Amino acid sequence: MPFAIEQYLKTRAQAVEDVLNRLLPANLQSPPPIAEAMRYSLLAGGKRIRPILCLATVETLGTDWQSALPAACSIEMIHTYSLIHDDLPAMDNDDYRRGKLTNHKVFGDAIAILAGDGLLTYAFQILSEHAADGMERSMLAIIRELSRASGVQGMIGGQVADIRAEGRKGSKETLEYIHKHKTGDLLTASVRIGAIFAGAAPHELSALTSYADKLGLAFQIQDDILDVVGDQAKLGKQTGVDATLEKMTYPAVYGLQESIRKVRVLTEESFASLAQLPYDTTILRAIADFLVHRES
Amino acid sequence: MPFAIEQYLKTRAQAVEDVLNRLLPANLQSPPPIAEAMRYSLLAGGKRIRPILCLATVETLGTDWQSALPAACSIEMIHTYSLIHDDLPAMDNDDYRRGKLTNHKVFGDAIAILAGDGLLTYAFQILSEHAADGMERSMLAIIRELSRASGVQGMIGGQVADIRAEGRKGSKETLEYIHKHKTGDLLTASVRIGAIFAGAAPHELSALTSYADKLGLAFQIQDDILDVVGDQAKLGKQTGVDATLEKMTYPAVYGLQESIRKVRVLTEESFASLAQLPYDTTILRAIADFLVHRES
Repeated sequence: MPFAIEQYLKTRAQAVEDVLNRLLPANLQSPPPIAEAMRYSLLAGGKRIRPILCLATVETLGTDWQSALPAACSIEMIHTYSLIHDDLPAMDNDDYRRGKLTNHKVFGDAIAILAGDGLLTYAFQILSEHAADGMERSMLAIIRELSRASGVQGMIGGQVADIRAEGRKGSKETLEYIHKHKTGDLLTASVRIGAIFAGAAPHELSALTSYADKLGLAFQIQDDILDVVGDQAKLGKQTGVDATLEKMTYPAVYGLQESIRKVRVLTEESFASLAQLPYDTTILRAIADFLVHRES
Repeated sequence: MPFAIEQYLKTRAQAVEDVLNRLLPANLQSPPPIAEAMRYSLLAGGKRIRPILCLATVETLGTDWQSALPAACSIEMIHTYSLIHDDLPAMDNDDYRRGKLTNHKVFGDAIAILAGDGLLTYAFQILSEHAADGMERSMLAIIRELSRASGVQGMIGGQVADIRAEGRKGSKETLEYIHKHKTGDLLTASVRIGAIFAGAAPHELSALTSYADKLGLAFQIQDDILDVVGDQAKLGKQTGVDATLEKMTYPAVYGLQESIRKVRVLTEESFASLAQLPYDTTILRAIADFLVHRES
């Protein structure tokens, strides 16, 4: 019987939703409307791919996935803050995200900036508050992992390179830098944080990192492809945006067919990395398979 | 012989400067101009009050202050990011800071937002990378302290309340909320982080927290007073700005004389808290004394 991936993703996304809602409650003591603004974007749905990748890795390595929910949710907070700031008029100037008005369109630029800052800061607060006894060293490693992946040598660096590349004729190296760092680093960190949480051995961490690196790049190329051929209604956002902004994308640089081929090759490579692990990797395979075949 | 506070502050500020410069070198591998933008604001001088308060607390409790330099510098990174974001056109829209053009005036709004995000993230990275063996539990407590003090229930919350209060007739409670959180929380955290680093006992942490709370409020009222009576050249920034923006300040709410009296009372109270400690608190007294008598 094939693994019921859609059911799996649905139940895990719901668990993430519940814990996000509990970690950042509507009645959080703070001056209005900052908690509301943070919740507006944090609880706007989304596929919760990053926390689910973290939880799936924990489960694959035989550790209770529910105990990793706060750590997994901290990754989603980082992801959400980056979307809020990316959407700002000073950056990509987007009005819609996941079919809803963007944060600054609802709360204004000042609150949107602060809501992003707040989520970024809260991610590290949550991690520092959820280290079980004896887990202090692992939790510090997780904080190191998340800060490096989301910092100027990771996600922020990718965003800087992306902004600089707009409207220019960039190299393939620039395209790869942007994809690796803007999206890839946080996806890889999601898997690595799960592995560190579950106490993975170095060679296991290494195989899982390779799986995540390949999957992350495949995921981003698929994202580029969907911007060209995707269904606007299913995606919940405008398509053709990258071309309008003259963004560097895989289809723009390599063509559509070659991009589709790259996704397939990377997916196979990610499966090969999983095959090195002495565990049942059904879930991680199924997630990869789902992500590269998604239509939204 | 009186304690040579100016000499002390100068040498400690230089030590902070050196370590900031080493932690965030000009050749940090990252896409231009993000490292340059972060360094522009981080190394723009300033009194380095927060890291120095941290180091002075460590020294007062008998621990090697130099070992606390990375932790102290992480506080300055948080402070600097908050200034960059506060200065943005969407927030206070300031063109000058410490006598230099603000970050977004030099690098543009997008890079300024990302430079702030980068410094905020880097602060936690630095902490997670500098836990000596056996210090893991303390370092997690320090990360907890810094994230809480700078988050939506701390500094960011104060900034939200400040933005909301502009141009309105606010209550004394609002004024106190803004002062306590926007500036006070990070100053108090600076002392508490030093205390946690040095392994302070609970009652010592409590006395030091009280010292820092009083000093923080006195410092902020003094800041408000200088905006009314200060010398623009000495301050390196425009005075009278608060009144123009109809910001809530102590002189505006309580009058100048009562504000000056409050600073004196709070300073005495901060000294009384120090007197509860079984240590030579000369340095912490001298810092408080210096800060409330400063002209810039």
